[in-house]
Amino acid sequence: AKQKDIIPQAHIAHYDLNQLQSTQDAAVNKEQVLILTPMQTFHQEYWNNLLQLTYPRDLIELGFIIPRSKSGDVAIKLLEKEVKKIQTDKKETRFHKITILRQDSESFNELGEKERHAMAVQKERRSKMALARNELLFSTIGPYTSWVLWMDADIVESPSSLIQDLTQHNKPVLAANIYQRFYNDELNKKDQRPYDFNNWAESSTALELANSLGPDEIILEGYAEMATYRPLMAYFYDPKGPVTATMDLDGVGGGCTLVKAEVHRDGAMFPNFPFYHLIETEGFAKMAKRLGYQITGLPNYLVYHIEE
Amino acid sequence: AKQKDIIPQAHIAHYDLNQLQSTQDAAVNKEQVLILTPMQTFHQEYWNNLLQLTYPRDLIELGFIIPRSKSGDVAIKLLEKEVKKIQTDKKETRFHKITILRQDSESFNELGEKERHAMAVQKERRSKMALARNELLFSTIGPYTSWVLWMDADIVESPSSLIQDLTQHNKPVLAANIYQRFYNDELNKKDQRPYDFNNWAESSTALELANSLGPDEIILEGYAEMATYRPLMAYFYDPKGPVTATMDLDGVGGGCTLVKAEVHRDGAMFPNFPFYHLIETEGFAKMAKRLGYQITGLPNYLVYHIEE
Ligand SMILES: Nc1nc2c(ncn2[C@@H]2O[C@H](COP(=O)(O)OP(=O)(O)O)[C@@H](O)[C@H]2O)c(=O)[nH]1
Ligand SMILES: Nc1nc2c(ncn2[C@@H]2O[C@H](COP(=O)(O)OP(=O)(O)O)[C@@H](O)[C@H]2O)c(=O)[nH]1
Ligand SMILES: [Mn+2]
Ligand SMILES: [Mn+2]
Repeated sequence: AKQKDIIPQAHIAHYDLNQLQSTQDAAVNKEQVLILTPMQTFHQEYWNNLLQLTYPRDLIELGFIIPRSKSGDVAIKLLEKEVKKIQTDKKETRFHKITILRQDSESFNELGEKERHAMAVQKERRSKMALARNELLFSTIGPYTSWVLWMDADIVESPSSLIQDLTQHNKPVLAANIYQRFYNDELNKKDQRPYDFNNWAESSTALELANSLGPDEIILEGYAEMATYRPLMAYFYDPKGPVTATMDLDGVGGGCTLVKAEVHRDGAMFPNFPFYHLIETEGFAKMAKRLGYQITGLPNYLVYHIEE
Repeated sequence: AKQKDIIPQAHIAHYDLNQLQSTQDAAVNKEQVLILTPMQTFHQEYWNNLLQLTYPRDLIELGFIIPRSKSGDVAIKLLEKEVKKIQTDKKETRFHKITILRQDSESFNELGEKERHAMAVQKERRSKMALARNELLFSTIGPYTSWVLWMDADIVESPSSLIQDLTQHNKPVLAANIYQRFYNDELNKKDQRPYDFNNWAESSTALELANSLGPDEIILEGYAEMATYRPLMAYFYDPKGPVTATMDLDGVGGGCTLVKAEVHRDGAMFPNFPFYHLIETEGFAKMAKRLGYQITGLPNYLVYHIEE
């Protein structure tokens, strides 16, 4: 699993991709994990959560892509401050490498949670997100990367063993279930609710719908005006079931999804054009399937999205 | 265009993709070119041709991917010898970086030119080539790469100003015309003939053909049993015309094709599954078009494939 440079002093790097592994014993086998985060807003809670992960830091690379927008200007300053702090602190607590990219492609204007989710703006928004994710992926994945963990910048709470837990399943593509904590005014207590509806299994209704669409039309999950009757992982959470329970999926979100690097290396990316009527992370899942990989979800393994 | 590391000593790399350029004055603007070559056989003529290119070497990175096969074992030894020679020679003549990958995905057994081109084996062969190209691309493209030049290992002759000539057109995807020198027994003299038929423009016949195909069937160019009547760039060579003449294309080969890095970074890769009934480099061209880019060919700009 360890890669070596044959004559590094002369800028020759030699890698045997066949020796590069992604196994269920990732940390023991010293497998390199690349955490990729598109970031419009820097949340201190995201960063704190990242720092409490227990996977060995010298095996973690971070990659960020930040939009050219006002909110991006703010985010990059805050991020750089934290990055500098950790990477200039003692050697043992540094990440292997951190890459910060400023986005080339146009970004979508900041919108509130409601507007952002309005179906009309979603197609354009998600197609731009697809380009941002591709720019980030292509620029940071290396010949030594074993795993890519897609984690959105507004994921603020996860088990500290997140990477060990996910890699242990040894799946090509594996999505955690994304919930949101909130204060339930009716019940007058703290509560949680499903947040991400991009993790789903295919339904015959959605397939029929797809057949009825023009070649460039897309299906977006989570909209009443386009009922797909797809089984959504968000609703399969069983607090009494084992956290290791899995379910087969056909679409995933990018909130907290672990991908074997070979899946991306084989070509799986985030289409910004309709791919089987799907785009971005959902299009990625379909592409991974076309490349012969299985998509899996962990309905009882929760991570939390910030409440806005 | 120069990229800078903010705090390199602490493993933080900062890149503004918006500042990264690919222009018609590539060498003057110090734009980094990544030459990518899948290599089953090492030909000394290929290497010699590479060394006679006049684009500044410190702006060139080389990336190779070599199959796990007997012929690959031989190729890697020969390649490594040459690489070591050049990279340990004086600093001024070294390439910026050279990455040699041993292929993870299965490779196709070596075949002669005739068998290799038989239509029945092409689908499998080209689908494996697609994976090799993706592995190579994803592992080597960096946030500082401006251009990617795809050059097959059996391209043995090109103008020494190849990179300057191609970048000067400032096109997202630009294919040279691939010919082959041979001894014409009938005319009893040295001659040349068209070699690569993967550079083509779409035809209505091919589009109708595509419509008649099942979702997983593919069209392969250059086979009598599947006549597409596509205009093939190979036949548009006009020895009296200007070498800078361009033509619009829809499909390309990977023999000698220059791509702006942003096209790949937006997500354009080599599908190993039918994409609009196309795979590998031809599927790549279609994907680049779907991402909004134009495909261009240079019918009068010749580079030469080895004669086997
Ligand atoms: N680079 C980049 N990141 C963005 C952009 N818009 C949103 N993001 C980030 O992408 C991720 C998903 O976006 P978000 O708006 O949270 O989507 P939602 O949670 O599905 O509503 C988050 O990490 C955002 O910070 C953008 O235009 N460019
Ligand atoms: N990595 C890798 N390279 C290959 C393999 N097969 C062929 N190549 C290389 O891919 C390029 C195109 O292949 P080639 O057989 O020449 O195709 P043709 O010229 O279109 O007949 C050449 O550079 C070959 O050396 C393979 O299985 N793996
Ligand atoms: Mn979010
Ligand atoms: Mn060839």
